Amino acid sequence: MSKPPSPISRYPVPELADLPADLRERILEVQAKAGFVPNVFLALAHRPAEGRAFMAYHDALLLKEGGLTKGEREMIIVATSAANQCLYCVVAHGAILRVYEKAPLLADQLAVNHRKADVTPRQRAMLDFAMKVCSASHTIEEADFAALRAHGFSDEDAWDIGAIAAFFGLSNRMANLTGMRPNDEFFLMGRVPRTK
Amino acid sequence: MSKPPSPISRYPVPELADLPADLRERILEVQAKAGFVPNVFLALAHRPAEGRAFMAYHDALLLKEGGLTKGEREMIIVATSAANQCLYCVVAHGAILRVYEKAPLLADQLAVNHRKADVTPRQRAMLDFAMKVCSASHTIEEADFAALRAHGFSDEDAWDIGAIAAFFGLSNRMANLTGMRPNDEFFLMGRVPRTK
Amino acid sequence: MSKPPSPISRYPVPELADLPADLRERILEVQAKAGFVPNVFLALAHRPAEGRAFMAYHDALLLKEGGLTKGEREMIIVATSAANQCLYCVVAHGAILRVYEKAPLLADQLAVNHRKADVTPRQRAMLDFAMKVCSASHTIEEADFAALRAHGFSDEDAWDIGAIAAFFGLSNRMANLTGMRPNDEFFLMGRVPRTK
Amino acid sequence: MSKPPSPISRYPVPELADLPADLRERILEVQAKAGFVPNVFLALAHRPAEGRAFMAYHDALLLKEGGLTKGEREMIIVATSAANQCLYCVVAHGAILRVYEKAPLLADQLAVNHRKADVTPRQRAMLDFAMKVCSASHTIEEADFAALRAHGFSDEDAWDIGAIAAFFGLSNRMANLTGMRPNDEFFLMGRVPRTK
Amino acid sequence: MSKPPSPISRYPVPELADLPADLRERILEVQAKAGFVPNVFLALAHRPAEGRAFMAYHDALLLKEGGLTKGEREMIIVATSAANQCLYCVVAHGAILRVYEKAPLLADQLAVNHRKADVTPRQRAMLDFAMKVCSASHTIEEADFAALRAHGFSDEDAWDIGAIAAFFGLSNRMANLTGMRPNDEFFLMGRVPRTK
Amino acid sequence: MSKPPSPISRYPVPELADLPADLRERILEVQAKAGFVPNVFLALAHRPAEGRAFMAYHDALLLKEGGLTKGEREMIIVATSAANQCLYCVVAHGAILRVYEKAPLLADQLAVNHRKADVTPRQRAMLDFAMKVCSASHTIEEADFAALRAHGFSDEDAWDIGAIAAFFGLSNRMANLTGMRPNDEFFLMGRVPRTK
Repeated sequence: MSKPPSPISRYPVPELADLPADLRERILEVQAKAGFVPNVFLALAHRPAEGRAFMAYHDALLLKEGGLTKGEREMIIVATSAANQCLYCVVAHGAILRVYEKAPLLADQLAVNHRKADVTPRQRAMLDFAMKVCSASHTIEEADFAALRAHGFSDEDAWDIGAIAAFFGLSNRMANLTGMRPNDEFFLMGRVPRTK
Repeated sequence: MSKPPSPISRYPVPELADLPADLRERILEVQAKAGFVPNVFLALAHRPAEGRAFMAYHDALLLKEGGLTKGEREMIIVATSAANQCLYCVVAHGAILRVYEKAPLLADQLAVNHRKADVTPRQRAMLDFAMKVCSASHTIEEADFAALRAHGFSDEDAWDIGAIAAFFGLSNRMANLTGMRPNDEFFLMGRVPRTK
Repeated sequence: MSKPPSPISRYPVPELADLPADLRERILEVQAKAGFVPNVFLALAHRPAEGRAFMAYHDALLLKEGGLTKGEREMIIVATSAANQCLYCVVAHGAILRVYEKAPLLADQLAVNHRKADVTPRQRAMLDFAMKVCSASHTIEEADFAALRAHGFSDEDAWDIGAIAAFFGLSNRMANLTGMRPNDEFFLMGRVPRTK
Repeated sequence: MSKPPSPISRYPVPELADLPADLRERILEVQAKAGFVPNVFLALAHRPAEGRAFMAYHDALLLKEGGLTKGEREMIIVATSAANQCLYCVVAHGAILRVYEKAPLLADQLAVNHRKADVTPRQRAMLDFAMKVCSASHTIEEADFAALRAHGFSDEDAWDIGAIAAFFGLSNRMANLTGMRPNDEFFLMGRVPRTK
Repeated sequence: MSKPPSPISRYPVPELADLPADLRERILEVQAKAGFVPNVFLALAHRPAEGRAFMAYHDALLLKEGGLTKGEREMIIVATSAANQCLYCVVAHGAILRVYEKAPLLADQLAVNHRKADVTPRQRAMLDFAMKVCSASHTIEEADFAALRAHGFSDEDAWDIGAIAAFFGLSNRMANLTGMRPNDEFFLMGRVPRTK
Repeated sequence: MSKPPSPISRYPVPELADLPADLRERILEVQAKAGFVPNVFLALAHRPAEGRAFMAYHDALLLKEGGLTKGEREMIIVATSAANQCLYCVVAHGAILRVYEKAPLLADQLAVNHRKADVTPRQRAMLDFAMKVCSASHTIEEADFAALRAHGFSDEDAWDIGAIAAFFGLSNRMANLTGMRPNDEFFLMGRVPRTK
């Protein structure tokens, strides 16, 4: 009834063996950790220089220390990627969010309507700011920073929130441009409580 | 980190025992089949006359014979409910769609971007028509019917597609109005292949 | 100069004699009261099960007791149907509104811009809530209910307002889908003061 | 139940006797013809120099010879003024349209959805062009002129269509700015066939 | 690489010698002052009666006394014309603004995002009001006038602000309709400080 | 009349001497070439890891070989940054575009309405694709690639076009978030023909 599984990208996807050493190593690292290679790494490695910069930017925002938990960063990604209708990022980062927060419902809630998600008022303020950067960044003014401060966010936290929304604005557009397909593994990740 | 589970509705929810017999019976029937009572039945039973009409309309569209499979009807519901940002309907009908189609990825694909879903060209035309009825019904013209006919849909099929989109336009607004919360059971339904 | 009068629907319209008894009786009742059969009854009777559910829902919302006058319910219908650009509902319910409120100007005012209509501040709050349910129901939050309460509306009144907007969201889409044409009688109804 | 009749404008409205002679004469002329003074003349006469230019522009577009009938010019005004949600122009020019075209239903049809109005395909093309000038003039390109030519419109006709839409873009904004109220007489004009 | 310079309008442009005396005189006056004939005068003179009314309206708004400086009136024109994506008015009035305000950066700032321009809070309030009249005049209410009064604007100033936005709503649409091309001279005017 | 020159960013801006050596060197290189340090380098260097990734991405897209000229890449940046209302990028890249293309009018044309700019039909197709990636990337489908191919663009060119639009989607949001101010030097660059 449905068409056969699409390729993962409209563009050619490199073999791991053909990649520059640094990219290959970075990808093997992720594979070791996740158990599979997320398609975004292969799809963007079609252009090694861009792929390398993408990963560097990604790591600078998501691996750094800061006032946002790892789970909160993923909340921003899921909500803004849904606003941009990016299938890859909603599905892949939804999975990561479920794993980080051990909250199997949260990603689906955020993807449909961030106002209905089980988040704290502080997280709601964070998401409202992120959504404004995502969809109407030209209207950001001092009052938006003040609203974050009222919930205890520093201006550096505001940069984190906004920069994650901005970076995934790029990521979402690249995924939509290339027709990037999320790995099947992501759809189920973090949904079933692990039993020992 | 997240706020405690919300009640299922902003409005009081009746006890099964307090409901008129016909509504109670209808709900027990669903419970027997699904293993739990979907919250929509309880939330809308706050107003028995409206709840009764809702179910009658629902059944008239979803249980009737016709040119659309049961799975295709659910595809329409998921895609249009996502356009209306209705958490309840995306989650509940996403679950039903996965079960009907035995397609664990399809609901998430449709909820994010129906253009990226694993559907046939015929189903894509069906969804384009449904989305137009959902979001810009005043622009529906003869050319839209012609586009459906080109894929083998009859005008009665067009009514089915449009009427499902229209009815869930009502349903989505009621769920958003009442803050209806999807049952936790729905989030996982149809995601894991059943083993014998 | 203009094309000949269109049929009342893109779909076949049943003869009264061919309808199930309950629908025929309901329609004859309306005819007795109004002096003619509003086209919506005939157009939707093309599908008796759906038409029956439609009328039941309609009656559950418009004939019930409650905090809104009959005229206020029609105000909601006219304003939201105009937002959905539904010719049938604006014209038919505009007529009913004029008759109920004995206000020959009100329907036209509401159809163009509800902010400019001759309504009380309380009715304005009611219409603002209805318009939000109509056009952006996913953004409804507690503050919207609070705004209604400030004008003396109960939460049950809020349900009435929202449910009428939601139900006519369905009705408007069905009318736009079927190309439903308002009866000529409606255009003039309630415009000329009756003389004794 | 409704608030007392509003004044006709947020701004002071001059007495006829206090107006410059040319404006007074122009207004008396209209009054002689229509039986009353349309409020727009008084509201805009608050600024005689602007009012004079407004009337000169109005006359240059609506009284000139050309490929559009007087009724067709009013169709453009009603459809575009509805898109701008201008109560004054929809009601006043709806009345004039009904009188010119002897078509009591046409203005209401155009105000709700120009796609559903009883107009010829040529008039539909005219209205599509007008609506584009009204709402997205920056997207007007050669193809839009070609679409008009296919219906027999000259490029001078295209100017007429676009200029009427543009001029009422100004008029609608002035009416919305000043809160201009249509005369009660307009609401009924042209609705009842005159008997001899 | 780029196509040859376009003509200044999609429509025929009259020779000065062929124009009615009053229009010719008015245009020669501008030419004497500016050193060249702005294309808008020639493009709109294709229809002398409309061109005459256009200039009269223009002068009534821009040459009158009032609470707005000449520079502030041009700020309104640049910001709203950018919202309407009108190349002619952004470029021509951007030039005039630079000259009036001796502010070589201001026009470009306003054309991209009026929230980022080097203006006073009072001017910001003026521009917010103008942008609302430009893009959503049907939502103008008393609160908008109150916001202006809080910055010391009178209601007559509000009319000036709104009327300039409204008039350039017309002007922008005519320029977009006719494909009016700004004179090359405008692009550089007021950018380089004059040395003696 | 206008407020004093704003700082170049809402966030602290590092001294060149305090920057990591690689960033400092990169910035000194630009300074040597341009004669001044574009503010974006300093504003983003507040976060060296992100700034470094930003520059790497920027260089990967703008310095690479490919089917687009350097001027065409800047056209994409100006048009999409205007759609995102990003003052910094419109002004800074408008300057670079004027210099590359020796076309003093082109940047202003593209910033207001890319449909009115003096570009070739091939460049127009390029810009239409870029604008779609910028504003509605979820609707990109095979037909959009086909439209590019019809103008001789390869699929790798399509990646270039889309990736530049996507990357400046990030850049625009960061500039809007930080309130980044363009250097005054940019406003005049490339406007006056250099004399020997």
